Parts: sequence; C-alpha cells; structure tokens
Amino acid sequence: MKKSTLALTLSTLLLATPVWADPSMSSIEARLAAMEQRLQAAEQRASAAETRAQNAEKQAQQLAAVQQQNQAAAAQVARNSAKPEPQPADNGGFEFHGYARSGLLMNSSAARTQGGPTVTPAGETGGHVGRLGNEPDTYVELNLEHKQTLDNGATTRFKAMLADGQRTYNDWTAASSDLNLRQAFVELGQFPTFSGAFDNATVWAGKRFDRDNFDIHWIDSDVVFLAGTGAGIYDMKWSDQAHSNVSLYGRTFGDIENNENTAQNYILSLNNFAGPVQLMVSGMRAKDNDDRRDIDGRRVKSDAAETGVHALLGLHNDSFYGLTDGTAKTALLYGHGLGAEVKSIGADGALLPEANTWRLASYGITPLGGGWHIAPALLAQRSDDRYVKGDRYDWATANLRLIQEITQNFEMQYEGSYQYMDLRPAGYNNRNAVSGSFTKLTVAPTLKAGDVGDFLKRPEIRLFATWMDWDHRLDNYASDDAFGSKGFDAGGEWNFGVQMETWF
Amino acid sequence: MKKSTLALTLSTLLLATPVWADPSMSSIEARLAAMEQRLQAAEQRASAAETRAQNAEKQAQQLAAVQQQNQAAAAQVARNSAKPEPQPADNGGFEFHGYARSGLLMNSSAARTQGGPTVTPAGETGGHVGRLGNEPDTYVELNLEHKQTLDNGATTRFKAMLADGQRTYNDWTAASSDLNLRQAFVELGQFPTFSGAFDNATVWAGKRFDRDNFDIHWIDSDVVFLAGTGAGIYDMKWSDQAHSNVSLYGRTFGDIENNENTAQNYILSLNNFAGPVQLMVSGMRAKDNDDRRDIDGRRVKSDAAETGVHALLGLHNDSFYGLTDGTAKTALLYGHGLGAEVKSIGADGALLPEANTWRLASYGITPLGGGWHIAPALLAQRSDDRYVKGDRYDWATANLRLIQEITQNFEMQYEGSYQYMDLRPAGYNNRNAVSGSFTKLTVAPTLKAGDVGDFLKRPEIRLFATWMDWDHRLDNYASDDAFGSKGFDAGGEWNFGVQMETWF
Amino acid sequence: MKKSTLALTLSTLLLATPVWADPSMSSIEARLAAMEQRLQAAEQRASAAETRAQNAEKQAQQLAAVQQQNQAAAAQVARNSAKPEPQPADNGGFEFHGYARSGLLMNSSAARTQGGPTVTPAGETGGHVGRLGNEPDTYVELNLEHKQTLDNGATTRFKAMLADGQRTYNDWTAASSDLNLRQAFVELGQFPTFSGAFDNATVWAGKRFDRDNFDIHWIDSDVVFLAGTGAGIYDMKWSDQAHSNVSLYGRTFGDIENNENTAQNYILSLNNFAGPVQLMVSGMRAKDNDDRRDIDGRRVKSDAAETGVHALLGLHNDSFYGLTDGTAKTALLYGHGLGAEVKSIGADGALLPEANTWRLASYGITPLGGGWHIAPALLAQRSDDRYVKGDRYDWATANLRLIQEITQNFEMQYEGSYQYMDLRPAGYNNRNAVSGSFTKLTVAPTLKAGDVGDFLKRPEIRLFATWMDWDHRLDNYASDDAFGSKGFDAGGEWNFGVQMETWF
Repeated sequence: MKKSTLALTLSTLLLATPVWADPSMSSIEARLAAMEQRLQAAEQRASAAETRAQNAEKQAQQLAAVQQQNQAAAAQVARNSAKPEPQPADNGGFEFHGYARSGLLMNSSAARTQGGPTVTPAGETGGHVGRLGNEPDTYVELNLEHKQTLDNGATTRFKAMLADGQRTYNDWTAASSDLNLRQAFVELGQFPTFSGAFDNATVWAGKRFDRDNFDIHWIDSDVVFLAGTGAGIYDMKWSDQAHSNVSLYGRTFGDIENNENTAQNYILSLNNFAGPVQLMVSGMRAKDNDDRRDIDGRRVKSDAAETGVHALLGLHNDSFYGLTDGTAKTALLYGHGLGAEVKSIGADGALLPEANTWRLASYGITPLGGGWHIAPALLAQRSDDRYVKGDRYDWATANLRLIQEITQNFEMQYEGSYQYMDLRPAGYNNRNAVSGSFTKLTVAPTLKAGDVGDFLKRPEIRLFATWMDWDHRLDNYASDDAFGSKGFDAGGEWNFGVQMETWF
Repeated sequence: MKKSTLALTLSTLLLATPVWADPSMSSIEARLAAMEQRLQAAEQRASAAETRAQNAEKQAQQLAAVQQQNQAAAAQVARNSAKPEPQPADNGGFEFHGYARSGLLMNSSAARTQGGPTVTPAGETGGHVGRLGNEPDTYVELNLEHKQTLDNGATTRFKAMLADGQRTYNDWTAASSDLNLRQAFVELGQFPTFSGAFDNATVWAGKRFDRDNFDIHWIDSDVVFLAGTGAGIYDMKWSDQAHSNVSLYGRTFGDIENNENTAQNYILSLNNFAGPVQLMVSGMRAKDNDDRRDIDGRRVKSDAAETGVHALLGLHNDSFYGLTDGTAKTALLYGHGLGAEVKSIGADGALLPEANTWRLASYGITPLGGGWHIAPALLAQRSDDRYVKGDRYDWATANLRLIQEITQNFEMQYEGSYQYMDLRPAGYNNRNAVSGSFTKLTVAPTLKAGDVGDFLKRPEIRLFATWMDWDHRLDNYASDDAFGSKGFDAGGEWNFGVQMETWF
Repeated sequence: MKKSTLALTLSTLLLATPVWADPSMSSIEARLAAMEQRLQAAEQRASAAETRAQNAEKQAQQLAAVQQQNQAAAAQVARNSAKPEPQPADNGGFEFHGYARSGLLMNSSAARTQGGPTVTPAGETGGHVGRLGNEPDTYVELNLEHKQTLDNGATTRFKAMLADGQRTYNDWTAASSDLNLRQAFVELGQFPTFSGAFDNATVWAGKRFDRDNFDIHWIDSDVVFLAGTGAGIYDMKWSDQAHSNVSLYGRTFGDIENNENTAQNYILSLNNFAGPVQLMVSGMRAKDNDDRRDIDGRRVKSDAAETGVHALLGLHNDSFYGLTDGTAKTALLYGHGLGAEVKSIGADGALLPEANTWRLASYGITPLGGGWHIAPALLAQRSDDRYVKGDRYDWATANLRLIQEITQNFEMQYEGSYQYMDLRPAGYNNRNAVSGSFTKLTVAPTLKAGDVGDFLKRPEIRLFATWMDWDHRLDNYASDDAFGSKGFDAGGEWNFGVQMETWF
C-alpha cells in the first residue's frame, strides 16, 4: 500500500507536471528539486529492498541449515524405521519357525486304517514309500530362535525345537504325548578375530540336526540324517568353490533311565563340498556297546558293533540332471559296522561289526510346461549281516509326483509309488523272510494360498484318495506291523482323507 | 555498512550542498552530474537488490522443493513407523496368545481341599458349578501363531497350542506333566479365485477347537465344544445375515497305545447362522466302536453306540435378553446315541445307541448402574439310557456373578451357585444313585490393572473366601470322588485362596 | 536478461552521451528528460525488487512454518521409531528369554562318565561342586512373556517357562522327556490408585521362582531358592534405601497322582532390604505331613515335621568385599524343622521337627588386571537331626574360577573346586557314613562372540579337560550314586568335552 501510494505520488509528479513544458530556469530548479526528492525516495526504496532481500537471504540460509539437520534426522529415522533393518531389533532377535502336518486318514468304510511312509515291511530298515495321501499323524515342530549381531560384527544364534507326533485325533493328548525338546544349540559366527579359511566359519555346540542334512521330501525320508549332541565348525572355506565342515556328535544307545543299559556313540564327521560335489566321511566308536545289560543283568547284544565308518558321495545339481531347468540331488552312501545305518548315522546300536549297507538316493524337480511339474525320486538300499550274520535287507523305491496347476489357488497332485523288497531277517526279532512289491497311487486336489506348482512351498490343504496293493506274501513279515493287521491285508486298499501341511 | 556509507554520502551531497542555492548553469551542470552519479548508484543498488531478492527466491524455491521431498520421505517413514501397520511385518507374522490361571486353594485349616467346577457328582456328566474361589489347579494354554498375507491377497494362518494342567504347587512338574499339543491347524482365506458364497470363506485343516464353540465362563463349561482333527470351511455367505460352516472332525476312542482298543469317530457338522439365530446339526459314525478290545482281548463295551446325531439351536443376543444393554446367549441342545454327549460332541465312546440327552444353557451380562454389574447363568441337562439301559443323569445349575467397582484397580466379585442333581447310574462304574442339592457362595476382592467391572477382561488377581454345602446323600455317589473324601464331606466347607487369571 | 538489457541501455545512455559535453539548455532539457526516464526505471526496478524481496520473505516464512511442522512430525516419527519405545508395541508385548546348556562329557576312553555339580555324596544335601567341565546334560528353559502398559499407566506381565533336562545325547527324547511348565504367573504394577509405600509395588500370583532368589553361578547352586504356587507383593518402599516383599507360597509333598500321599506346605515369607543388607524370614506349615500314606496305606514318614522356620541374613556388595572393584554377595542361612532345607525353602517333606541347618554362602567377582578376572566362592552347610535323629550332614565347598582374556573372542577359563564332607546318615535311605575330600581341576578354552572376561555374559562355547579325585571312602556312601559306580571310582578321573551355554 505504501508502495502503491508512493508510485501514485511519483506518477503524479512525473505526469501531472511535465518538466519539459516550461523552459525557464525556475522550472529547471523545480524539476531538479523534485527529481532529487524522487531520487531520495528511490534510494530509500532500493535500500529497503536491499534490507528485505538480505533478510530473506538470511532466513533462507537459516531454513537451509535447519533443513539439513531435518534431513539428517529424517535419514536417521528412516534408517531406524526402514523395514529390512529393524526387524531383528524390534522383536528382540526372536524368530518363530515351524513344520506341521495334520489330518484325517480313513479306509473305504470310513474307519481306522494303516498308513505312513514306513507302512511296508521295508520301512523298518528305511524303505519309505510315497507320503501323499498316506499320513495318519499330526506331527509338529515348533522352532524358537534368538539371534543377535554384536557391535563387533560377531553373530549369535540360539535355536530350540519342540516336537510332537500323535496318531490320535483327540485334542487333549497328555496320555500319549511325545512332546519333547529335539534341538537346543548355539551358533557363533562372523568372529572379527577369525581370518583365512575361518573368516566366515560358524562354530556351534549343543543338540541339533546337522545343518547340511537333506531329504527326499516326497517319501518323507532324509537321504542322510546326522543328529545328536555335540559341537562343530561349519564353512571352513578353502576357495570360492570349496568348503568343509567338521563335527563331533554323540548318540546314546539304550534306555537312559537304566544306567547299565546305555552306551555312547561318538561320531566324528568331515563334510566337504567342492562345487556341486559333496564328500562326507564319518567314523564312530561306541565303547562297551557289546556290554550293555538289561534290567536283569543280561547282555542286550553281545555281538553288537563298537565302531563304524560311513561315507556319502553327493551331487547337487542346479539343473534337472543337466538336462533342463530344475534341480536334482543324487547321493551314494556306504556304511560298515555301526555306520551301516546309513541314513541316521550312528543311531542304531544293534548293528553287527560285519554289517554292510549301500544306499543310492536321487530326486529331481522340473517343469514340464503347460502348468505341469514333475518330481521323480529313487531310493534303494542293500544291507547284509545287519543284525544277524547272513541276514539281508534289500529294497528299492521309485516315486513320481506330478503337479497340474488349475488356478492360482488350486492344483491337482498325483503320486505313484512302487517298491520292491527282498527281506531275509534270518530270524531276527521274529521277522519272517519275505519278498514282493508294493504299489500306491494317489490323487490329491490341493488348495494353496499361492505358489501353485511349486513342490516345496506351503501351506497347503489337500483332499486325497489313495489306492494301495502289495504281494500277499508281505503280510507275513511280522505279526505286529501294518501289513496283515486286522482289516489291512493284500488285495487292494483304498484310503481317503484330508490333510494340511505347512512350514515357515 | 556499504549501504549506510552510501546513504551518508547521498545525504551529505543532498543536504550539505543545496543545489538550488546557486542559480548558475555550472551549478546546474554540477548538480545534474551529481544526480546522474547518484542515479547510477541507485540503479546499481536496485539491481543488486533485485539480484539478491532473486537469489533469495531461488533459494526459497529450492528449500520448498527439498522440503516437499522431506515431507514425502517423512510421510513414508511415518507410514513405515506407524504403530498399526508394521506389526505383522516386524515380527514376521508371529503372534503370541494365551490363557492361564494359577493359585492356591486351601481349607479353613490351611490344608489340602477339594475344588473345581466339576467337584459335585453331577460333574462327571458335565454338571459344572461356579468357578470363582473354587479352582485348585494351574492351567495354561500357550498359543503360537504364524500369519501371512500374500501378494495376491490370500491369507494364511498357522496356530499351535501347548497346554498343561497341574494340581501340584511345585515348580518342577516333570513327573505329573500333562503338557501336550492341543491344537495345530492351518487356515487359508481370502482366496482371489473364490467368489459368490465362498468369497470370504476360510478353509482349514488340522487339529483344533472349532472356531464357533462358546462357553459360560463363570462355570468354566463350554455350551458346546466341537474339537478333534479334521477339515472344514467357515463363512460360506448366503446373505449379509446368513452364513454357514461345514466341517468333518475325527475323534479317537480308547488308548492309542493299544491298537485294538481304538475306534475312530467321524463327525460331520453343519453350523448355520441367520442373524442372531444359530442352528447346528451334526451326525457321526464310529465303526467297530462296539468291538474294541482291552489288553486281554475282551470287548470293552459290546453295546457301545456306533452312530449318533446332535443338534443345537442357539440365540445370540446383543442385548440382555432384549431387556436392556448387555449381551446374552441361549442354546438348546439335543443328542442321541454317540451324540448324547452334547457338550463335547463325539468325544464319549461309552454311550449307548439308545442314549438321549437334552441340555439348556443360557447366560447374560448387563450393568446394573452405580458401578454394579450382573451375569446370571443357567445350565441344565437331562440324560437317560446313557451308559446302561435305564440310567438317568439329571441336573441343573443356576449361577449368579456380581461385580462391584470400587476403584479403577479394585472390584469386589460375588458369586452364588446352586445345583440340584438326581443321578441314577443303574450300577454303572460302581456309582450309587443319589439326589440332592449343592450351594456355593464366594466373595473375591479383586485387583485389576484396568477394565474394572468388565466380566471378560483380564488379567486379574483375586483373594477369595468360599463357603460350600451340600446334601450329605451326595457323599455316597462314588468312593473315589471329591464329595465324601477324607476331610471333605457335607455340613459346610470353607475354602480360601488367591488366584491369578489372564488371557490375551 | 531483462536486467542486463536494461543495464546496457542505462550505461549506453549514461556513457555514450555525456550530459556535460553540451551546455545548452536544450541539452539540459534532454538530460533532465532522460534522467526522469531513468529515475522512473530505477524506481520501477526498486519497486520490483521490493516485491520480489517481499515474496521471498513470505515464502521463507511459509517454509519456516512448514519446517516447524516437519520437525514436529519428524520428532514424532523419531519417537515412534526410536528403538527403546516401539519394541513392546511392535511385537504385541511379546518377549522371548531363555537359558540353555548342552554338550558332551566323556571320560579318557571316550565313553560314558559321571558328572554334574551334585556328583559327590554331599550333593544329596545340596553340596555342589564346580560346574565347569562337569556337566553331562542338556538343560533348557524357554520363557514366553506378554507385557502391557495400560493407558492408565498400570503394567501387566505374564510369564510362562517351559523347561527340560536330559542326559541322553539323542535328538528325539519323547521316552525320557521331562519337559514341563515350571512357571506361569502374572504381575500387576504401577497401579494409579496405589500410593505411599505401595506406589511402585508389584502384586503377583501364580507359579514361579521368587524374583529375589540368587545363586552362585559357578557351582550351579542357588543360595536360596523360594518357589512354588502362590501370591505376594514386591517392593513396598519404606524409604529410598529400604523396601520389603511379602509372599505366600504353596508346595506339595508326595505323589500328586496318589491323593492320600500329598500334603501342602504353605510358606509365608517376609523379605526385607535396607541398603546392602537383606533379612528374609519365613515360617511354614504342612498340615498332616506326618499322616501321608503310600499306596498300601502305610504312613510314609510318621515323624515328619509339620512346621518350620527359616531365616537368611544377606549382604549384597557393589564392590569386591569392600576391597576393590567388583561385586560380592554373602549370606548366612538358618532353618529349623520343615525350614531345615535352607536352599529350596519348604521343598523337603521328609525333614524331622528337630532338624537344624546352618548354611554360609559367599562369592565375589573382581578383575585382577592384565586381562585376568577372578571369582572365588564358598558354600558350607551343617545339618543335623535331618531325616533321622542323630544324623549329621556337614560339608564345605571352596571354588575358584579364573578367566584369562586372550582375544576379543577367546578366553581361557580355569576352575579349581575343593569339597570336604562328613556325612553320617544314621542308616537313612541305606546310606553309609563317610568322610573325605574331593578335588576338581578344569581348564576350558572358550569361544565368545564378545564380552570376553565377563563371568556372567553368554553365549559361549567351551572345550574342557577336567581332572577329579576323591578319598576312596566316598565310594561307599551309596550303591546307586555316581562315586563307586562302574568305571568311576577314586584314584583320579579325567573327563573331556565340549559345551555351549547361553542365556538371554
């Protein structure tokens, strides 16, 4: 307002009294005087403008300074709040993981039936068959973990696993509960004072499943399962391609409540990886295993082995056997003496010193196109002089799982499983010599929240119908096993059910 | 400084040498020259002022731009950090929930006493009485959940429940531990490929308590408790007001360790809701339940039912029986054969095919004003031909809980419980026919962190004094039950104690 | 650009036509006219500069206002995101804590051996020895907590502890599982309606270990261990220096499955702290403890005590016995009757009414300089008329733990443990009178992620070699204890192993 008044005054002065209209000196004087006044005003205004511009600059500078602080603070806040980083901080390093399966399995009369991957006589020595539509239990693993990264960069991890398996459908299962603590271990890693091969090594101790065990999911069998209480080092790196683990595991044979009936098996294992190739060698010793006594002081098994060796040669393909997209794993295992239980290394205290076992395991996963996916698997084992001199347990399982994508939430799963077995227990444990084959065919319409077509993503809920048949000779293997039990003998059995499975 | 020096120079020029004092042309020339110089200076100053103002504007614009970025970033940070949203992300979908009660219960001599909602002879067939000041156990449920929302909008939920109940006060309870896995199930929902009635449906499988079970809290009894292992669909919507659930549950009768002693009961249940009305109908079948054998090969119960039906008609009011503010639930249940255990559907394998049971259950909650709140409850049941032809188990419990708010952390709780029973077991299980009534009165000063006056908010810690009495005829029902046991017979018993209860 | 054009025009006008070159009036007119134009231009420019400066000021003001909002918002975000505060919000109040130890213990033949802090005959009455390199078990405690702070400021806490102890090395331990729920309690605190001494008091109820128990870590023995099911109040403050706890705990004697074989022991305890001094007094009563019956109706122990008293006088130094930096704790305990089990107050139902026990416990921690740290400990107890009139159980353990820091991830630990015992059971439980001493020496190279040299920080993984020897008289104490068992008798025993230990 002041400005426009001033502008009005100026224009009044300039226009209302044109200075060039009167040539006299007095007019010149008047004009000069007026101009001086106008100049003074112009100078004052310029001065004011300078002051205001200067103030504006000062304010802008201050704002810039404050803004820099704000940006730094906001960046700090963003670092604090960004999703990837604060997760461990926010939940105090806690992680929850788990595995669970639970469901119904009934026969064609909607009554109790038999099932499970170890349903055949070969199951006793590890001969699993396809699990789809063949599981009657609720099995759950709950993992509680606590992880830390220290200021010096070192990492710590504690993991505890609670596990239970039940065949009853009831909710309250205190009477038959098998709830137990299956794992409890600590891992320390990223030691700032370690270097060379040990730079990224992880040291562990406690009770655990070995980290590098692997399984054939579709027959619910580990290829190798090293577990127990012990200590070891993972990931000693020899090169970008090669690293090794070393571990010492203890296992206990016999009933821990009966002090004289226990022996401890110590397993020293070296597990080496070079590119896709794995070579694992283990030696073990269970002093006084042949001198364990039952409650009446009698020797449990006077010819039980006290030592053993075990080896695994593995190939981990990141393609479907080098043929096409997918993955594949193949392993050849050999064990002798206490090592002749080739899957659960060192877990069987009844083996003979002469026992020999060979195992071949392989599986692959690949897409077939058109929404179809396939996963073939093979598990075969030959074992002799196992529990009694001259015995022999041979079996081979071929399994094929197919997935057909229907929608993004629905797939059809198909599984065919075939097993041939030739079991000659030589009278051990009142088992009879039998040979023959087993076949299982399953179809399972399956609901998934997502990841349809992925063999190894869960959760899923599946309905299933399973048809099984086997040589009736297999009904005679044992009086207390599934085959030949009441209402479950050769000639064709239908099982139906529904099941959930999840892991996370 | 430059400016003020310049201003001084200008005023010196203007005032110290008045231009109009000398009329000669030379003075005019001088004055004009001086003015030109001054004009030049003024112009320069104006130019400088323009530059500085322009710079100030530029800086302010930059600041504004930066500030907009800051605001956007801060808004993002705020979104990241805001409490409601990151919770599932930050803890990896983990949730911890639980229920627990634990405390002391002693008689007037500060010694061991009897208690619990099933303390009376009617308790065996579900006749619960008021629980306040009447619980001697530590009962705990720990729920570990894992939840996900997938990119396609589908949701997954895994829930595992560990539960234990103990009557010992000791901390280490390995010898008597009942710790077991009571639930383990998966729910999948919000399928993007589902539509129509199934749009918001949830599909589940596993071992669980049915989601829509409900209880009368004050007598610690479910009105209906459907549980087991199975699968089903929740919330098939027929309209805004109507939806249905369908489920198939399995239960196991007998000792799971003894293979010949088990039968499986399959329960198909349809649960319908239309507005406040619920109609639930269930059918069940347990093949070979009459052929279960004990360890010696004898039939456990040759006249046991193999089928059953069950129905529940419920009314869920969002007012106190339509009379005033509050809530109320009422249900009428009927069961026949295996369905005659009307609360725990399909859980009793000893029922006769002829068994009939009717149950009426109702409770409400309403404020009375003046800081008082009231919750009356009724549970009545008539059951005949239950375990032995001609038997009869009739009972009715009326219960009244009152809360009187004292401060925001303290309330008084009062409970009166009355039960009449007429039990005629016809010799079953060495029980004797008895009839009579039971009365319990309890006062319980109660501490709460908050939510005083709310019947269903916890945690709370309460002291209590309870007086009980009953007809002495009831002492004769059984030799191994609470009534008539050493130091606990008719004539009036005082119990005292303290207890915590929480759920979250 | 406009400005520079204008400046060029101006300078052209000013310099190209020097006004003083022509003295004629017409030139004066021309110059005056030109000057007027220039003045107008200068004024317009000054006006423009003013406007722009004003705008710049306005913008800067707006920026300042926005920035203030931003700062307030960012501060809010920072408060939301800051690590200490959101933790309870982000994980829904959940906290996971735990303790675990697990590892291998073998003798010099790499076979089963004996071990544990209670390995000596004195162990039965609480005579622990050093634990380093002397633990054969996997012991785990998993704590799940739920915490809340209500709007009114009150706090709630629920804690549940799952615990298990196993001596088998196997992973699946369902058969020998001791998994049990050791704690389940609720704490309420910061009541807005409490004031005075109760201002910061915490009220609790449930099953728990008393909060103020303390132990001598190196011999794995609590100095005092009050635990059970009950209720109490912590931190009634009398002054800045003095506060008290009051609690009532119940314990159960006998087998809870056998109803006639149980008695309940109620312990009222008052625990007072004034500066470093603690005085804890407890009285207890177990009605009918002398009338417990075994399964055949015979009295378990007709002379068992029914009442008891217990006192503890403690000193909690925040220096190493007032001598140098560090900490120290010392306690003198006395118990009579049922109180004569002075560690696990009220947990032993076999004590005589005449039983007397005195216990002295002390330990300290201090740095020695040069990367060395020392922790001496003493635990001595005299107990007579304990289980049989005239019996006497005297023992004293001295223990010394040393740490030598090597790197920030590696330390050497050394432990020497000496115990003298004079045990005269007077025939109780088929124990024989023995006296003699026990010595244990251990060296343990130890890996830690950090906190090397800190006696009480975990996790750590340690290798160890232990040498033990004892008077051969001690082998005769009992036929079913460790000393004198097969392969484990006086004359020097070596044990080796590896172990992890963690708490968080």
